Amino acid sequence: MSTSPPTLPYSPGVLSLLPLFYVGWSDSVLSPSEVKLIHKKIASFPFLSAEDKHLLQQWSNPQAPPSPELFKQWVQVIRQTSLQGPSDQRQSLVELGIEMAKRSAGEVDQLQWSSEQTAQALADLEEALGIAHIDAYRNIFHTEQIEREKEEREQQASFDYNAMTDLLDGPQAELKRRMRILLIDPYFKLEVWRDKTDYRQKMLDWCKALARQGFGAIAFPEAYGGNDDMEAYIAAFEAMAYHDLSLTIKFGVQFGLFGGSVYWLGTEKHHQKYLEAIGTLELPGCFAMTETGHGSNVRSLQTTATYDPPTDSIIVHTPSPKDGKEYIGNALHGQMATVFAQLIVDGTSHGVHAVLVPLRDEAGELLKGIKVEDCGYKLGLNGVDNGRIWFNQVRVPRENLLNRFGDINDQGQYSSPIENPSRRFFTMLGTLVGGRVSVPRAGLSATKTGLNIAIRYALKRRQFSPKEGEVETLLLDYPTHQRRLMPHLAKAYALHFALAYLTDRYVNRTEDDIREIETLAAGLKSYATWHTTACLQECREACGGKGYLHENRFADLKADSDIFTTFEGDNTVLMQLVAKGLLSDFKKEFHDEGFRAVIRYLSSQVSDTFSRNPFQTRRTESSHLRDPEFQLEAFRYRERALLYSVSARMRSYLNRRMDPYDAFLRCQVHMVELAEAYVERVVLEQFVKVVKTTSPELRTPLKRLCDLFALHSIEGQKGWYLEQEYLHPSKTKAIRRMVNQLCLEVSHEAKSLVLAFAIPEESVVAPIVTSD
Amino acid sequence: MSTSPPTLPYSPGVLSLLPLFYVGWSDSVLSPSEVKLIHKKIASFPFLSAEDKHLLQQWSNPQAPPSPELFKQWVQVIRQTSLQGPSDQRQSLVELGIEMAKRSAGEVDQLQWSSEQTAQALADLEEALGIAHIDAYRNIFHTEQIEREKEEREQQASFDYNAMTDLLDGPQAELKRRMRILLIDPYFKLEVWRDKTDYRQKMLDWCKALARQGFGAIAFPEAYGGNDDMEAYIAAFEAMAYHDLSLTIKFGVQFGLFGGSVYWLGTEKHHQKYLEAIGTLELPGCFAMTETGHGSNVRSLQTTATYDPPTDSIIVHTPSPKDGKEYIGNALHGQMATVFAQLIVDGTSHGVHAVLVPLRDEAGELLKGIKVEDCGYKLGLNGVDNGRIWFNQVRVPRENLLNRFGDINDQGQYSSPIENPSRRFFTMLGTLVGGRVSVPRAGLSATKTGLNIAIRYALKRRQFSPKEGEVETLLLDYPTHQRRLMPHLAKAYALHFALAYLTDRYVNRTEDDIREIETLAAGLKSYATWHTTACLQECREACGGKGYLHENRFADLKADSDIFTTFEGDNTVLMQLVAKGLLSDFKKEFHDEGFRAVIRYLSSQVSDTFSRNPFQTRRTESSHLRDPEFQLEAFRYRERALLYSVSARMRSYLNRRMDPYDAFLRCQVHMVELAEAYVERVVLEQFVKVVKTTSPELRTPLKRLCDLFALHSIEGQKGWYLEQEYLHPSKTKAIRRMVNQLCLEVSHEAKSLVLAFAIPEESVVAPIVTSD
Repeated sequence: MSTSPPTLPYSPGVLSLLPLFYVGWSDSVLSPSEVKLIHKKIASFPFLSAEDKHLLQQWSNPQAPPSPELFKQWVQVIRQTSLQGPSDQRQSLVELGIEMAKRSAGEVDQLQWSSEQTAQALADLEEALGIAHIDAYRNIFHTEQIEREKEEREQQASFDYNAMTDLLDGPQAELKRRMRILLIDPYFKLEVWRDKTDYRQKMLDWCKALARQGFGAIAFPEAYGGNDDMEAYIAAFEAMAYHDLSLTIKFGVQFGLFGGSVYWLGTEKHHQKYLEAIGTLELPGCFAMTETGHGSNVRSLQTTATYDPPTDSIIVHTPSPKDGKEYIGNALHGQMATVFAQLIVDGTSHGVHAVLVPLRDEAGELLKGIKVEDCGYKLGLNGVDNGRIWFNQVRVPRENLLNRFGDINDQGQYSSPIENPSRRFFTMLGTLVGGRVSVPRAGLSATKTGLNIAIRYALKRRQFSPKEGEVETLLLDYPTHQRRLMPHLAKAYALHFALAYLTDRYVNRTEDDIREIETLAAGLKSYATWHTTACLQECREACGGKGYLHENRFADLKADSDIFTTFEGDNTVLMQLVAKGLLSDFKKEFHDEGFRAVIRYLSSQVSDTFSRNPFQTRRTESSHLRDPEFQLEAFRYRERALLYSVSARMRSYLNRRMDPYDAFLRCQVHMVELAEAYVERVVLEQFVKVVKTTSPELRTPLKRLCDLFALHSIEGQKGWYLEQEYLHPSKTKAIRRMVNQLCLEVSHEAKSLVLAFAIPEESVVAPIVTSD
Repeated sequence: MSTSPPTLPYSPGVLSLLPLFYVGWSDSVLSPSEVKLIHKKIASFPFLSAEDKHLLQQWSNPQAPPSPELFKQWVQVIRQTSLQGPSDQRQSLVELGIEMAKRSAGEVDQLQWSSEQTAQALADLEEALGIAHIDAYRNIFHTEQIEREKEEREQQASFDYNAMTDLLDGPQAELKRRMRILLIDPYFKLEVWRDKTDYRQKMLDWCKALARQGFGAIAFPEAYGGNDDMEAYIAAFEAMAYHDLSLTIKFGVQFGLFGGSVYWLGTEKHHQKYLEAIGTLELPGCFAMTETGHGSNVRSLQTTATYDPPTDSIIVHTPSPKDGKEYIGNALHGQMATVFAQLIVDGTSHGVHAVLVPLRDEAGELLKGIKVEDCGYKLGLNGVDNGRIWFNQVRVPRENLLNRFGDINDQGQYSSPIENPSRRFFTMLGTLVGGRVSVPRAGLSATKTGLNIAIRYALKRRQFSPKEGEVETLLLDYPTHQRRLMPHLAKAYALHFALAYLTDRYVNRTEDDIREIETLAAGLKSYATWHTTACLQECREACGGKGYLHENRFADLKADSDIFTTFEGDNTVLMQLVAKGLLSDFKKEFHDEGFRAVIRYLSSQVSDTFSRNPFQTRRTESSHLRDPEFQLEAFRYRERALLYSVSARMRSYLNRRMDPYDAFLRCQVHMVELAEAYVERVVLEQFVKVVKTTSPELRTPLKRLCDLFALHSIEGQKGWYLEQEYLHPSKTKAIRRMVNQLCLEVSHEAKSLVLAFAIPEESVVAPIVTSD
């Protein structure tokens, strides 16, 4: 190593103080008393020239902290002058400064830099600044190394995340942009709500504010203040879910469920009378379907709506306490409810229909025969006023029947455009499938917020160093941490595109493909909301104790989204619906008659055939593993094989004269597996399609995420693939290695990938990432 | 079918009213107005004899509702008299009553029972009672069928659950019994706490009440009010965790962490001065270890404790804001804290030591130089007052150093009985391993409460029926539901015995096996708390929307236990510690020098050899699958194979001159897998041992749970076993079928298995199971 002094921009005097200045400024603040002290001390130091003193006084001006460039220069100078890298022996800041001065000073000055007085003078200043205990070397070299790593990491992202945002926002970019701007307004500032009454009131106010902006009526016809734009409604729902999920669900109850029921199940007269007031929230209302005794099994609801000819009215009645309406959103604020009940006309039940029942008068007092009970605190969503409602012989006019699919004429006779009661029921429910399209998108917004926080934290937080004294390792540089978060990030992207596809199919549905879309919605809703729960749990844990503090958002993100796996249909029940849809090839009959139709269908089918390529089972080269054709084939194989095996089992049970219901029960677990395979295949297909059609800039990062999603899913199912001998052990091992590699690669641009979600910092809030 | 009238205890007149009485009483309440009405109507019915009227008046006495026996008799009579089973055509209660009367009446009376007047009279009564809409057949036959099923199910349990409780309670049965009795006292009534100040105060009061009962000091020597019984302390901790986890953690902070640090790290003088006051909670204190910047990496804590010879005191100081103590329990109530800091004597740092620092004066005012900030609301545990603490040059006397492992003598010189600073550090931390023994047991209590609720609910709740009009299916009779809950139940039992084993090892530890016990504690803590999180999530979802209501306990159970996976050591970090322990065969050196020692150890080892039996890979008969020898061999094989492969990989990296740290990182995911295999092997070994040694009565249910735990774990790892060709696909398929079968079998006695946990109903609380 050369011992000749390097050419430096600073004199030995300045150098002697540089470490102190560097550390003193490192928290970006010099207090007035510190400044005063520095000025006084500096003026007294005999080893400083007038120029030195002038420069140092400039540097200690609290009005003008050193620029990042100057700060960086200091680090470089310190690094150049002192020993290369940290030595094992710790030095104080003073020792470091003196060493630097010595190295750059001429021979004549060496004595001065070796004197006790100089050292003491500097030590006094250090002591007075309260920085004597800080390990100079570690701090300085670490900062430098951390800065370098950060720069490298930022250069690693191969794409502009704004371009990714545009892709993700898609056709609703403008609406989402508007919603973002709106929600960062101080009016919508997120707060910690502990009291449910206050929180509920605030959410009501916020919903009204959104309604005033036109978001409430957006899916209704223009005549009633809307845009007739269901896609926009869903996008708004997704965008506000970045902010507060109580707001989102309250909004959904009022405009999507209550408004939607009037719109889809009612007719012109109801639209004219109510839609405008619903869209502005002048008429807050409920969607009273679920009962204490019947949730998933809507068809067996017990509430009755009996037509009473003498008074030409409908009597809505709760037969027993456990038949009360349960978890009804808006129950405390609502003035009216769409009540689902067994419609009885002339002694005959025509199955579940919806009737509008006023709940409260203008003063907010409950009407006669109506009982409402607060559901109290819940695990989350405490800004939504859920309640229980019982009806005691409540009389409403006949026209309150939402009569699109079943009506009572002036002669008191029932009629319906759909003869078959079962098909009628499923047609009515089908119009409400929008909820199953929207909910997973709100869940995905929560997922993305969680990933944003956990990943940005993992790029700030360091813990444990390779050797004592060395810079600690960033959490995201740990392979375990990459393994915990990167597959979830990939899946979030996969789900984003899959849900966009579902939305598109849904808003463009026809009579012909409605069964398939319902099946897809049921499957994606389950698959996506289970992912939300799993991902947020992992993100919370990945942030350690910090993730447990309420301020860092996981408390609400987890609690509020937790219900998503069991509302708008319990996921396990929905997955069986999906399997039934697949087994009956989306034929309408299956809806009409449940599993009996499936059995009929199955017995009419010839056995499916599918093949596997024995050569493929052993290919392990990376180009093959990353080939979408291989991935898609594996996913499709799994789906077809499971479809075949479930069918075969079921047929075999039936041939043995087993009761069809028992046969179904025996295949239940198998059916859920089939449903999952179907959903994953659809998700991968959509992701592959996006990768193919997107711009070259975005293709690379998206391809990597798509590969990670595909291979991580296959890895998760490797037991099955090995059992089927579809994959050879050498191949599953190669897939594991490739997943590790992809986790590493994705981690390099993880920050850009979460910034691309374009979640406003006002919604992220978490100090672990937004502060500093 | 015979048409001759059956011999019945009731006259036709009584029979005609029996369905109405049955349904009228079915909610166990007849209101005064209903009674008045019944009496009036009955008196007027011409078709009733005087005896009939007398009997019916007796039956409508609200002071004496029908006994369960009478109620049952009614059902039997209705069932005998009317058609067998429900017909497809629904009948009203009146029609049913009349049909019954007709069937038992003689020919002469037939006319009376066919008359319009009779029917109308009964219908009027039905209408007036508000039960006209209830489907008589369904209700009556279902109740009967449900009762029968229930009886059958109760007979299914092959054992007395009280005997199981005795086994589970083990040697601490008496203490656990005392704690149960104590906590069901109204003083400890569970409430919904939304305000943290109130909740914290209540938990402080509860802790004091427990201290007054002697639980606080239980682990301390008798001289200071205790029993010197760590096992009892841990049992008390576990038992109170059934009740309120904030209480449990607050208790643990005061007596286990703060008290434990004084007891284990201090010496006689500290014990004399403080232990009694700590045990009575006269002196509330903190365990101030974690810092904002350093959680898992305790060794790099930044707080300094500098010995100042002139004043013979120690100056405790927080060098920068991010070095503040973080999440410190008792921070708002504490008067003193055990502060972990780098001890600096004469300019030399001797590593982390503990110093007692007074925080507040008797009036509760903060002392000079101490800053405390409330951590605010957390995801859960809001009854624990966590805060941040900063020290600004706080001076305490030298004797406040907890000096068991490092002392400063009167000459101001540092000395320690343990020369090596690294070994000293780990020895000090090792004495605190009690936390890692206790926390998973508290987590398991939460798991058991969750299982109690979800399983009892699944045995009450019905949804969907095979055919319209048939009784709906119990949730626990769905195979998907069994699959969701039964493996968790089996694992809870497995963990119970494993944690009892750990406790036993811990309280009987010696210098020789302490490293192994620390490794076991780290592993079991991680494995068990991850299970708590996963199991409670599944239980919540298995209760659907009901599980989301705060009143049904999952909100708190989930939220409060969520932190367990990352406190007392982050699980992922702990699992790496476990792997390091295994790789170095629990040699002390590994603790002292981290992974470098492991590397040395590895290179000194000859390669492990282990074999597999090719014949075994294809055996699928149930006696083989349920043979503990097969199960244990599979678990042990996995552990050994992973140990071998991690070692081999590491050696190969090192031979290629890779930096040891990088080599470690590359094996990180692999190491976590190894750690898990080790923990599971230990858990299974203990469970098998319990099954072998327990009473014959309990052996059958326990063997079933043990098999389910073992085979479900193997099923979860089947990808690995197939990859290794340790299991043939035919065998993994057989295992899947056996798991299904075991889930079904265990479900039949699931209720007894959760009742055996002996959780007081006052702690369960959840109305979905405790109410009817």
